[in-house]
Amino acid sequence: MKVLITGGAGFLGQRLARQLLARGRLNDGAGRPRAITELVLVDVVPAPGPDDTRVRVVTGDIADGALMRGILDRDTSAVFHLAAIVSSQAEADFELGMRINLDASRLLLEICRELGHRPRVVFTSSVAVYGGELPDLVLDSTARNPQSSYGAQKAIAELLLNDYTRRGMVDGRVLRLPTISVRPGLPNKAASSFASGIIREPLNGVAAVCPVSPDLRLWLLSPRRATEALIAGHELAAETLGANRAVNLPGLSVSVGDMVAALERAAGRAAVARIRYEPDPAVERIVRGWPAAWDASRALELGFEADADFDAIVRAYMEDDLAPGGRVRD
Amino acid sequence: MKVLITGGAGFLGQRLARQLLARGRLNDGAGRPRAITELVLVDVVPAPGPDDTRVRVVTGDIADGALMRGILDRDTSAVFHLAAIVSSQAEADFELGMRINLDASRLLLEICRELGHRPRVVFTSSVAVYGGELPDLVLDSTARNPQSSYGAQKAIAELLLNDYTRRGMVDGRVLRLPTISVRPGLPNKAASSFASGIIREPLNGVAAVCPVSPDLRLWLLSPRRATEALIAGHELAAETLGANRAVNLPGLSVSVGDMVAALERAAGRAAVARIRYEPDPAVERIVRGWPAAWDASRALELGFEADADFDAIVRAYMEDDLAPGGRVRD
Ligand SMILES: NC(=O)c1ccc[n+]([C@@H]2O[C@H](COP(=O)([O-])OP(=O)(O)OC[C@H]3O[C@@H](n4cnc5c(N)ncnc54)[C@H](O)[C@@H]3O)[C@@H](O)[C@H]2O)c1
Ligand SMILES: NC(=O)c1ccc[n+]([C@@H]2O[C@H](COP(=O)([O-])OP(=O)(O)OC[C@H]3O[C@@H](n4cnc5c(N)ncnc54)[C@H](O)[C@@H]3O)[C@@H](O)[C@H]2O)c1
Repeated sequence: MKVLITGGAGFLGQRLARQLLARGRLNDGAGRPRAITELVLVDVVPAPGPDDTRVRVVTGDIADGALMRGILDRDTSAVFHLAAIVSSQAEADFELGMRINLDASRLLLEICRELGHRPRVVFTSSVAVYGGELPDLVLDSTARNPQSSYGAQKAIAELLLNDYTRRGMVDGRVLRLPTISVRPGLPNKAASSFASGIIREPLNGVAAVCPVSPDLRLWLLSPRRATEALIAGHELAAETLGANRAVNLPGLSVSVGDMVAALERAAGRAAVARIRYEPDPAVERIVRGWPAAWDASRALELGFEADADFDAIVRAYMEDDLAPGGRVRD
Repeated sequence: MKVLITGGAGFLGQRLARQLLARGRLNDGAGRPRAITELVLVDVVPAPGPDDTRVRVVTGDIADGALMRGILDRDTSAVFHLAAIVSSQAEADFELGMRINLDASRLLLEICRELGHRPRVVFTSSVAVYGGELPDLVLDSTARNPQSSYGAQKAIAELLLNDYTRRGMVDGRVLRLPTISVRPGLPNKAASSFASGIIREPLNGVAAVCPVSPDLRLWLLSPRRATEALIAGHELAAETLGANRAVNLPGLSVSVGDMVAALERAAGRAAVARIRYEPDPAVERIVRGWPAAWDASRALELGFEADADFDAIVRAYMEDDLAPGGRVRD
């Protein structure tokens, strides 16, 4: 079977590709394990790898119907739709966010529908679909009330994916991801970019800017668990999920202060001293509007796993991503 | 000032037009009352009236950008966006529903944005944005979880209107309407069409088919109150509404059995004898998925008014819409 990852050059896309190749197979629509014969990575940025004969790198825009129709075919039974314009960028460039987060998501669903074999489509949504006055613990039944264009576009794509699934056009799964931390590599245009930067930069001997106050609570998931969740979300049988295709993944509710304390336990005072607090009200406004925790009991029942604590997340980053001498591998 | 009603030939559009003309003015964006100098009714069906020099009838498709750009201008400070493909039709014709309920709504917002003067846009949403497992009383904080394409498209249009409002591109207001009953005229393609038919047809001496069981509860609003609510929703100051632009309008939670009992009180046994029960599982499934009641306290605080009881609704229908001899006026 053929597997497609949109945003395949991105952070989660690259990790997912490596995991899928190592694993070698995925369930098909009927739940039968099948070998992955081709893994297509489409991204506007050329995907740097992985170096494997099964990988096909396509460099292009997922909003381009001709390109996408050339990639998807009746053998494509798994689509991981990760390409996105992230939060701060979608806020700064409204058209671009609408075109990629909304129109291209809809185009993807339309092409799957045209193919007619009901591929599994795994879509990554976000804490940003929630906002406004929120209870301390967000429930599955809590209204999505996004306060950013990114959040609105993700919420719309969720609704589309749900309706295409209900109509039998695709077999969709929405995974609402907590903020991913610690993300290796360079800062990105997500409002939550600092949630990795304040750990990653100090561990790499680099100065970090923290744009929010230490009491701000975040809802976090490690890259390891996030990648596992994407695969687990694909593998679930349609009947197990039922009509409600959105799953709020388990996370850890951690304050920025707690995160810095974990950094100190892992790497000492010198690391912490590299963080400079420089409040950015725009970032603080966006991130404070997101839930600091949600009820993940459905996800846990479905078999998704949580991180143990933020210390474990920092350790996992140091093991997976910090090369000897402190250089980041990705 | 110029006022636009999309779906101006429709049931609510025609009533709203008459009310606006009688009233003669609306608040502008700054809250100052201004005379309505032009009332544009756009609809695919030619609007039959009202006969008034201020009325301009435009017959065409609201998904047509050139047409819409020709209608909206900098003097248009009020837009009532009522045109829609209703529930059963949007379920039967997916493309049509997407094109009108989603794409045309987005086009309208885009044109308002291009104009740059932040017109007030009143959008009619529906009980159908809710669904799945619902609490007995739906709250403002309850997740929108539509189980029909109509509901999904309305929920998406709500999200768009909210984001365009948050960004200062329009001054939007979403009024979630209960099911309107008693609607005069002919049955339509809404799944809830029977909720008017079982009262209207017997009062007009015609046989009616009820596709659902008598215990099914509906959340109802009279046409009078609905039209008043559209105007009241427009007149509210932006500050009064704040960030949350969606208002769940007050309704009455009435079972089909209660409705029939009210019909009997108003018109006797002979009227009730004209109703034939003929279960239609498709209609029952859609309508049973909608909330039978929601918490309307915010709407009541904002000054929206509820009907007294279903007997009053039946009386209002008989006064407003039943011509002497039982012929329907509309
Ligand atoms: N990382 C997080 O904290 C987090 C949290 C919640 C949700 N998500 C979601 O998970 C997904 C993956 O996130 P990520 O952290 O890997 O982001 P990322 O920015 O690293 O990857 C997204 C990729 O999409 C690509 N892309 C953008 N526009 C494109 C286009 N028009 N055509 C093709 N490719 C395009 C980018 O080039 C990028 O490589 C996204 O949908 C994101 O919204 C991420
Ligand atoms: N009546 C109800 O019970 C109820 C309940 C909740 C919400 N609503 C909403 O209120 C609004 C008005 O409802 P109504 O009962 O008057 O419906 P209606 O069907 O009588 O009116 C809708 C009008 O839209 C027009 N229309 C459809 N496609 C069009 C297009 N492409 N271009 C121009 N016009 C087009 C139709 O011709 C029709 O005249 C709709 O948005 C509906 O979804 C109605």
